[in-house]
Amino acid sequence: MKITPESASIGFIGLGVMGRSMAANLMKTGYQLHVHTRTRDKGQALIEAGAQWHDSPASLARVCDAIITIVGMPEDVESVYLGKDGLIANSRPRTLLIDMTTSSPALAKRIFETGQEKELACLDAPVSGGDIGARNAKLSIMVGGEEDAFNTALPLFETMGANCVRQGPAGSGQHTKMANQIAIASGMLGVCEAMAYAKQAGLDQETVLKSIGSGAAGSWSLSNLAPRMIAGDFAPGFYVKHFIKDLRIAIESAKDLGLEAPGLELAIRMYEKLAAEGGENLGTQALYRLYQG
Amino acid sequence: MKITPESASIGFIGLGVMGRSMAANLMKTGYQLHVHTRTRDKGQALIEAGAQWHDSPASLARVCDAIITIVGMPEDVESVYLGKDGLIANSRPRTLLIDMTTSSPALAKRIFETGQEKELACLDAPVSGGDIGARNAKLSIMVGGEEDAFNTALPLFETMGANCVRQGPAGSGQHTKMANQIAIASGMLGVCEAMAYAKQAGLDQETVLKSIGSGAAGSWSLSNLAPRMIAGDFAPGFYVKHFIKDLRIAIESAKDLGLEAPGLELAIRMYEKLAAEGGENLGTQALYRLYQG
Repeated sequence: MKITPESASIGFIGLGVMGRSMAANLMKTGYQLHVHTRTRDKGQALIEAGAQWHDSPASLARVCDAIITIVGMPEDVESVYLGKDGLIANSRPRTLLIDMTTSSPALAKRIFETGQEKELACLDAPVSGGDIGARNAKLSIMVGGEEDAFNTALPLFETMGANCVRQGPAGSGQHTKMANQIAIASGMLGVCEAMAYAKQAGLDQETVLKSIGSGAAGSWSLSNLAPRMIAGDFAPGFYVKHFIKDLRIAIESAKDLGLEAPGLELAIRMYEKLAAEGGENLGTQALYRLYQG
Repeated sequence: MKITPESASIGFIGLGVMGRSMAANLMKTGYQLHVHTRTRDKGQALIEAGAQWHDSPASLARVCDAIITIVGMPEDVESVYLGKDGLIANSRPRTLLIDMTTSSPALAKRIFETGQEKELACLDAPVSGGDIGARNAKLSIMVGGEEDAFNTALPLFETMGANCVRQGPAGSGQHTKMANQIAIASGMLGVCEAMAYAKQAGLDQETVLKSIGSGAAGSWSLSNLAPRMIAGDFAPGFYVKHFIKDLRIAIESAKDLGLEAPGLELAIRMYEKLAAEGGENLGTQALYRLYQG
């Protein structure tokens, strides 16, 4: 199958902040979209732009050649894919199913295997790049699954992302995303502690960034989130509660792999403390609050 | 005082890997150097290029208008500055003393105050950028001390560095360097754990870097040190033993400031474990070895 706007009907399930922008980019490129999401209101703008609404994943599945999902938690992924009214039970053979939720690598493998029995090609393809990356079609898309399926999906990926890489067999996309989140987690501790130290030492934090921002301490978090910490701006770019979800998957997955990850364990304890203190709807840079005494 | 190659005699104490390159850059710009270091052999090339050798800091101090030091440990700084044969006891009034060693902020303040009593201007000015930054005069120089002294020293700094920033009063340069090392320490845990996770999950680590290297997980360490981890190249860019020295100063200083820094504490425990297992002469990226099982 070759996917083009003329030849393929595309399904899109999950129209949160990320999904809405990704779906809009597909429509801009000319794809005819079938959409479903838990709260219909979130699809209103897309429906008005011509997307066709479906009341259930099952209804959508029956008419699509390729279906993209980006929902909330691994439980949601499980129900959308493996439930009685889900995609695997209701898609036509040879439909391409692409889960872009950040979810469990083990679940991704299970979906792939269950899909195979029904002649369905399944890819796990979580993203990084946030709401801005989604809007500007600059996402990094990390893909697990068979090479043929990846090549078939590539035109869709390239409509949503700027860095689309097949990482290996089913589950590899999720594993790569976990590696990404693991690197971020401890890195954020370093940025928070450096900024808290600077403040406590009586330094001007912005001047400190001029010295340390571009050398061996440099990072995306230091450049992009430290200025928000300094300004007391804890508004969500990426929600604490979503990061905790990801880190829990990472911890679980590391345990399955027999890997000790003390930095990751420390980071999740800190983030859970932040959430317990009411920070779950703040942005990840709010970890800095724990250091403010 | 205005420092120019024509008007000022410059002293340079400490000709290790960093000091040698920094001193060479001063000579290239035309400065007449007086040099001293613990092991005379290390000064041989500079002496042959015209630097004047002194057998002690005291001898050097008597003939210099500005003196730069970059020695090993805070104890070495203390002895070079505050010892009987040291710089403060033997420099002429109004000499500019610049310590570029990464050392204790509290010691920097003590040197500044002791210097003041003798009409000596003291700056703490640790660097980041490593041996390559030193060679190419691209160091980031973080300076603490009085503004006049900073302005006087600027021509020297600009001969050695590309990013020379006054951070505040005495000790502020060292505090800024500590913030830098604190950010690096936890960040390195994140990079090691991400790479170890990727390997354990059966991913191709270099392909993982293609997905995660330039997004929110991106950092100098991920770009520059993860490839060395993957290649099993643990040769020192920056020595584990020196990083441990820095982190101990940071821990001590954080304690003085009443700051809890669990990421920093975890990092130093890990690095001490690595050193105890024989890794102290490896590069900081060798922390990855602890995760290789």
